[in-house]
Amino acid sequence: MDTPTSVVTVGTDLLAGAVEAQAVPVTRVDWRPPMPGTEDDLVAVATDPRRADANARALAAMLAVQATLVDVAPASEVLGLERGQFLHAGPPIEWDRAAGPLRGALMGGAALEGLVDDPQDAVALFESGTSVSLEPCHHRDAVGPMAGVVTPSMWMWVLEDAATGRRTACTLNEGLGKVLRYGAYSPDVLTRLRWMGDVLGPLLQAAVRSAEQVDVTGILTQMLQMGDEAHNRNRAGTLMLLRDLAPAMVGAGEPDDVAEALRFVGGNDHFFLNLAMPACKLALDAARGIDASTMVVAMARNGTDFGIQVAGTGDEWFTGPAQLADGLYLGEYGPDDANPDIGDSAITETAGLGGFAMATAPAIVRFVGGSVPDALATTRRMHEITLGENPRWSVPVLEFQGTPTGIDVARVCRTGILPQINTGMAGKLAGVGQVGAGLVTPPAEIFPAALARLADLARTRTGAPA
Amino acid sequence: MDTPTSVVTVGTDLLAGAVEAQAVPVTRVDWRPPMPGTEDDLVAVATDPRRADANARALAAMLAVQATLVDVAPASEVLGLERGQFLHAGPPIEWDRAAGPLRGALMGGAALEGLVDDPQDAVALFESGTSVSLEPCHHRDAVGPMAGVVTPSMWMWVLEDAATGRRTACTLNEGLGKVLRYGAYSPDVLTRLRWMGDVLGPLLQAAVRSAEQVDVTGILTQMLQMGDEAHNRNRAGTLMLLRDLAPAMVGAGEPDDVAEALRFVGGNDHFFLNLAMPACKLALDAARGIDASTMVVAMARNGTDFGIQVAGTGDEWFTGPAQLADGLYLGEYGPDDANPDIGDSAITETAGLGGFAMATAPAIVRFVGGSVPDALATTRRMHEITLGENPRWSVPVLEFQGTPTGIDVARVCRTGILPQINTGMAGKLAGVGQVGAGLVTPPAEIFPAALARLADLARTRTGAPA
Repeated sequence: MDTPTSVVTVGTDLLAGAVEAQAVPVTRVDWRPPMPGTEDDLVAVATDPRRADANARALAAMLAVQATLVDVAPASEVLGLERGQFLHAGPPIEWDRAAGPLRGALMGGAALEGLVDDPQDAVALFESGTSVSLEPCHHRDAVGPMAGVVTPSMWMWVLEDAATGRRTACTLNEGLGKVLRYGAYSPDVLTRLRWMGDVLGPLLQAAVRSAEQVDVTGILTQMLQMGDEAHNRNRAGTLMLLRDLAPAMVGAGEPDDVAEALRFVGGNDHFFLNLAMPACKLALDAARGIDASTMVVAMARNGTDFGIQVAGTGDEWFTGPAQLADGLYLGEYGPDDANPDIGDSAITETAGLGGFAMATAPAIVRFVGGSVPDALATTRRMHEITLGENPRWSVPVLEFQGTPTGIDVARVCRTGILPQINTGMAGKLAGVGQVGAGLVTPPAEIFPAALARLADLARTRTGAPA
Repeated sequence: MDTPTSVVTVGTDLLAGAVEAQAVPVTRVDWRPPMPGTEDDLVAVATDPRRADANARALAAMLAVQATLVDVAPASEVLGLERGQFLHAGPPIEWDRAAGPLRGALMGGAALEGLVDDPQDAVALFESGTSVSLEPCHHRDAVGPMAGVVTPSMWMWVLEDAATGRRTACTLNEGLGKVLRYGAYSPDVLTRLRWMGDVLGPLLQAAVRSAEQVDVTGILTQMLQMGDEAHNRNRAGTLMLLRDLAPAMVGAGEPDDVAEALRFVGGNDHFFLNLAMPACKLALDAARGIDASTMVVAMARNGTDFGIQVAGTGDEWFTGPAQLADGLYLGEYGPDDANPDIGDSAITETAGLGGFAMATAPAIVRFVGGSVPDALATTRRMHEITLGENPRWSVPVLEFQGTPTGIDVARVCRTGILPQINTGMAGKLAGVGQVGAGLVTPPAEIFPAALARLADLARTRTGAPA
């Protein structure tokens, strides 16, 4: 027998080592067992003849989107949000199951809207549920970081994909620490929100309406060359936004107000997060409703449940319990103070940024914990569960490889590798605010649940027994 | 005989391989022969009992400097520069040996100052040398990128080390392409310089004098976490400067002028270079004149000569021919169009930035050429010829290792490893402007020349035969 020119081994190293000892070149392929109980569904999905094309179309649709900042206006105008209507992050939830930080943000939002004078009085309002309603941001073409609460008077960024006219929206970022989206509702939190509505919003509106439109997707491209991963590092993005808007802000208001607005934006390294998120949603929304596609189009958390939506399963949510992040805590806070994972911001990971792009932002480990090699390894690992790479968002240190993009439910189930999210941590009690930042994954079981639904749809189409 | 627990091998791999084959752990130490003819001088310097302490003091003095932006004003005020006095980059040179881009910048500078109406008429003026004089920036506490020409009416940044009151200065950056510092002197170049003097300079002065002082050393710290190496990438630095100055610029002038100034700064990714350079000089000047120190305190080029100054040899220049860079060319330009290396900007490498910090700026290879692994390897290699690391300027992807800092003439001679500089390339003909950017090293012979002088001084001190 001739010596084979090469050998490919799968899984453990035993065979590879033995073959290499005989001076035969070996290509090792990592292999892990699929998630338990998913074998039949994996076969059904893998043999669906429409899957490959559907996934290619989903990925291409997503990558074709160009997000441009086109307006800034109150949620009442942008989304038609009415008095008593509250949007929140994550999949649908009601007050009785809402976590502390979501409750805190709703209480603060009720006071901001004048529904109550004291945020504490809002508890009875939400318990009664008679004049208020809760709805996910995602159901209204919007996203919200952390609690993600949006009320009619809050000003929002409006992004548009010029080719399709599709739009998404997100509120303006308040900064870190004691802020509404982390569940704080003290008087200074409400004072800041009122200034944002009275001064900052109108100034930004005047600037955006008069300036050349800001290319948000392009800023994201640049950020990834500048150490931002666009979820928990948005420093360069914030600075580029300031660069693009500052000239038009001059003259759009009283000099003192303009200077204060410039200081506020420049003093908040996370300000651009609220543009990165709707840009990611805008891209992913282009892939919604593509039958047979196994690509995840949303990952979102309300502080109680973690939910995903998938291109091939319409607007159905697959949910499981939100997990506690592992990370670094502010001041005296510790793991006992943290609420489980919350926020729509995992839309960044869904689009190939955040945890998926950590290799380009090694300094992020000083904020969310972990080591630099971990950050590099995380991006490499995410390529195992994604459909492709984003050529526009490349990672210089990985020799300009595109970020891993388009989470594939089938690959997650087949490898058992869960999407890696980096996130801020809210205090679990209403009113506390931020307690830290860290790393977290979705609950594993939501992927087999989504896979089962995709498999059912595939079997239905092919006439195979369900 | 007992088996040794470990073996250290130096130089080629022959012994290491043989020992490893016997299952003995081997530590490989890279070794190269010293530069030819330096053996005796290396011994004299190595055995100088004052050297280690002198180098420790030189490095510590440099690392202790904090550069703060304290003023913006014309060179006539900052440096007392008078009509007909011209500063230039690099070691001293006269018109007859000056390279094309330096001549072009001097001609444009003469027209800017009204010494001639047409830049071409300045040739006769400089050839006669009667009413004009040339002097290095470095001799006047200043630095200048590329040609580095400074005339009395040009506005300059002024940086100060608060602990010592020491100051350095640098002109305002004009942008890339057809600009004076690359040797261009067309009417649009002079128009831009006049606007910078009439509008931009006064606005920046008002902002700097009214704002909280800008911490330039601190911005450099942040830049290195954001993909800038502060020589040919200054994107994040420029944006942070804009963030720090913009609020104070609002109201310091007519809104249209302020907006134009914000656009000019925001549109020039290299704007911060002219703050990075004097910050580096301010740090290195603290190490000047420390007897017996073998640390380089300046590397500078005038387009004809490359010169270094060393802590232990006072203000003496050791010079050799400036080299041609290897890199990427703009448009139709090629190697035949490029002038040899020019500018004081190698002060960034002297301080541990630029080529020395390329690992933190892998995207730089798209501007200066080379590969991402080369960029990482360059920073690692520079640790071989430096005295220490800068804890303030750390490289996230190298697990936050400080940049290699304090070039040691002795280590350069002992290893033959030359400092790596990345640089813009000027056209070799006066008037052309920028033709590319690339990588370059100093001429090797200037290090043995400096070493010989250090060795002479050491022998004189110890009474050994010279």
